[in-house]
Amino acid sequence: MDIFMTQPHVIHVGADLFADALVAQGVPVTRVDWQPAAGESDAALSLLLNDARVEQANQEAVRRMMGAQPRLVDVRPAHEVIAGMHKHLLLHAGPPITWERMSGPLRGAVLGALLYEGLARDLQEAEQLAASGKIEFAPCHHYHAVGPMAGVTSASMPVQVIEEPVYGHQTYSTLNEGLGKVLRYGANGPDVLARLRWMEQVLAPALARAVRALGGIEIKPMTAQALQMGDECHNRNKAATSLLLRQLAPALVETGTSTEETASVLRFINSNDHFYLNLSMAACKAAALAAHGIPYSSVVTTMARNGTDFGIRVSGLGERWFVGPAQRVAGLYFSGFTAEDANPDIGDSTISETVGIGAFAMAAAPAIVQFIGGVPADALRYTTEMYDITVGEDSQYQLPPLNFRGAPTGIDVRQVVRQNLLPIINTGIAHRLPGVGQVGAGIVRPPMQCFVDALHALADEINIR
Amino acid sequence: MDIFMTQPHVIHVGADLFADALVAQGVPVTRVDWQPAAGESDAALSLLLNDARVEQANQEAVRRMMGAQPRLVDVRPAHEVIAGMHKHLLLHAGPPITWERMSGPLRGAVLGALLYEGLARDLQEAEQLAASGKIEFAPCHHYHAVGPMAGVTSASMPVQVIEEPVYGHQTYSTLNEGLGKVLRYGANGPDVLARLRWMEQVLAPALARAVRALGGIEIKPMTAQALQMGDECHNRNKAATSLLLRQLAPALVETGTSTEETASVLRFINSNDHFYLNLSMAACKAAALAAHGIPYSSVVTTMARNGTDFGIRVSGLGERWFVGPAQRVAGLYFSGFTAEDANPDIGDSTISETVGIGAFAMAAAPAIVQFIGGVPADALRYTTEMYDITVGEDSQYQLPPLNFRGAPTGIDVRQVVRQNLLPIINTGIAHRLPGVGQVGAGIVRPPMQCFVDALHALADEINIR
Repeated sequence: MDIFMTQPHVIHVGADLFADALVAQGVPVTRVDWQPAAGESDAALSLLLNDARVEQANQEAVRRMMGAQPRLVDVRPAHEVIAGMHKHLLLHAGPPITWERMSGPLRGAVLGALLYEGLARDLQEAEQLAASGKIEFAPCHHYHAVGPMAGVTSASMPVQVIEEPVYGHQTYSTLNEGLGKVLRYGANGPDVLARLRWMEQVLAPALARAVRALGGIEIKPMTAQALQMGDECHNRNKAATSLLLRQLAPALVETGTSTEETASVLRFINSNDHFYLNLSMAACKAAALAAHGIPYSSVVTTMARNGTDFGIRVSGLGERWFVGPAQRVAGLYFSGFTAEDANPDIGDSTISETVGIGAFAMAAAPAIVQFIGGVPADALRYTTEMYDITVGEDSQYQLPPLNFRGAPTGIDVRQVVRQNLLPIINTGIAHRLPGVGQVGAGIVRPPMQCFVDALHALADEINIR
Repeated sequence: MDIFMTQPHVIHVGADLFADALVAQGVPVTRVDWQPAAGESDAALSLLLNDARVEQANQEAVRRMMGAQPRLVDVRPAHEVIAGMHKHLLLHAGPPITWERMSGPLRGAVLGALLYEGLARDLQEAEQLAASGKIEFAPCHHYHAVGPMAGVTSASMPVQVIEEPVYGHQTYSTLNEGLGKVLRYGANGPDVLARLRWMEQVLAPALARAVRALGGIEIKPMTAQALQMGDECHNRNKAATSLLLRQLAPALVETGTSTEETASVLRFINSNDHFYLNLSMAACKAAALAAHGIPYSSVVTTMARNGTDFGIRVSGLGERWFVGPAQRVAGLYFSGFTAEDANPDIGDSTISETVGIGAFAMAAAPAIVQFIGGVPADALRYTTEMYDITVGEDSQYQLPPLNFRGAPTGIDVRQVVRQNLLPIINTGIAHRLPGVGQVGAGIVRPPMQCFVDALHALADEINIR
């Protein structure tokens, strides 16, 4: 009798249909947030979740990731500092890709770089050269570098040099060109090339002098401060750029060669709220690299997109890429553009999320929803979800709206697959054609296939050992 | 019978004791957030709440307050721009006060200013002069100026000049000296005076040249941006100071007289996250002044403390001050100091809260609780409470954590008394003795007496008319 006289208490797991029907009849339902694991991975998951060596390796990976102390020490031409860099090598964002499979913005940037290097006289010649097989293409990541959007880096381009004293490696990134028509979005007109030359001849030497005069600049504390100032340091870098300019300005003045040049450098940085992004990315790369190469670890140490493919690499799986199709970004478009214009997801800037900032720290950046869509509550929710798929919480990256909880850090391939919950990424949206530029910004997730494949590869490794 | 068989629904108003007893027995209670009005004000409240002219006047006051467009146009010696300023006049924070009643930090600042102006050779001579009746003391507010903490402003001190083109007035504030031992906290040693002289001879002329070269700087949009970057622009000005430095830097370089001077100016601003505060205060004063002098309006247009008294002025009540005792600040103390060391509440910086920023916008600044105490949820709660005692919401001051709701703006004396809910204020804490400096920061509220007296004065006015 009792069951008809008293209110039932329902706990619900699985297909929503049942719970929804009860709710419609006024019955309170407690829903358990659970989904079946992705991609028939039960055996691999069971193996990896029960192997203490994996857990231990992950703790070590994240300890190293959070312990890295990236420091900007110089700004130099790529060929002077990147080992193996040469005139006919172009680095690009994301996993490896051939000229034939490159998307519009990446092709546009490649052509621009060939003109910039003086390897071609016009776009037609550049296109022939790019397709000829005489140009070597390789991921930035293979050279300890990272580049936003197309990420194209050529020998003469100045790069910011990050030194990581704890683990003893260097990482690199180009300087941010600003908004509008820029090489990283595939633009390659005369104005784009002229700006790149000014950056090479004026901006980079000025920054190099200032950075050296300051004895280097610690990046992690600056990012940590910016996280308390509404940035998430991927798609919002307004505070971080301001803090960087504040620190650089006196040294730029004292080491400047002329008033005009110093003023032009300060004006260039001031005009671009994303100036900090590339620097932050190189610092993130230094942290990810510190966590890479730990046997058994299922922690992700690279997430990157070339505009066609999305690829990840995993700490315990060496240099192998696990690749799936680059996804469409859901976001806000600039006036005059729509989803029709958008290229699939592109760029190395996902190195931010790889080490716990960007969309992973979005709780700290509620104002960003005006740029990428959604409401401030989404920002809190995204960060909160990411604790479920990460190994650590970075006590240096405190998120004020979450009571100063540390940012969720170190994506665990096992948890992504087990919970069927993909990492969240903030990103810019490039036009699918070369030469147009940014058309919007939004939210995207990687393809699940990368994580399922990596999981199975790690299970295979462990079975073999 | 029914009452014993079914769950009672309890709505509770008044003393918590009854509600608490029910809650202890597991009965759900809906509490109505209501308190009796303060200070036997029922008749006055009834009159003022039912007079349509008051409501209309308040709407106009807040429309003007929010519509003001303060613009920094110059930096000049006080005696050149403040009408009536002269060598033997010292302006101070808060309502009028005599030398005899001044607290330690205000006395310390007065003595320092007399030395700085060359009116005394040492502290003993300065003290004799201050007590002699030959020095005129007046509130900054009487001269359209505002000063943080002691707020002492003398004839030779450079002041930032704000022009308000919509309502056509100018307002003023001194330049922020930085942290540690500074005049505004009552310090007056040789280092304090040397810094003031450097500010007069190097900093102020450099800023003046840069500001004029830029054709002035709009302050409200900068404050609005800072509110999206974790500042509330009273006790946290890190983002705003950064944005100001970014905008000034190129012009400082281009109009500088020497590399050394320009670098020293940039370094000075960079070293002080509160540099923006005084500028913001002058801009807030411009907004408050625009709202002042509207007959029948019960909107507060001044809240200010001299370290002994807290005073308010009201739009519809002319130049009358309504005064009560300055309160103790509840907050966090710097290492080595306790509440024993604290002077009562002091400074004109409450002009921030008067126009809807500072503690009123604290929802935007969760990280501030590490400086003033409490948890981020407190910051949200303080702002949310203030909507109950304010007339408008400033759509230019959007608070991201509250879904971009406008900051609560324009304190209504009627609502403060009716709801027995005092404005909340973020503030620094000065040592009670001159010469020590800041010892902490925290939260404070005005004495209710100011608001009750103002309410009755407004009711009298209306009865007479």
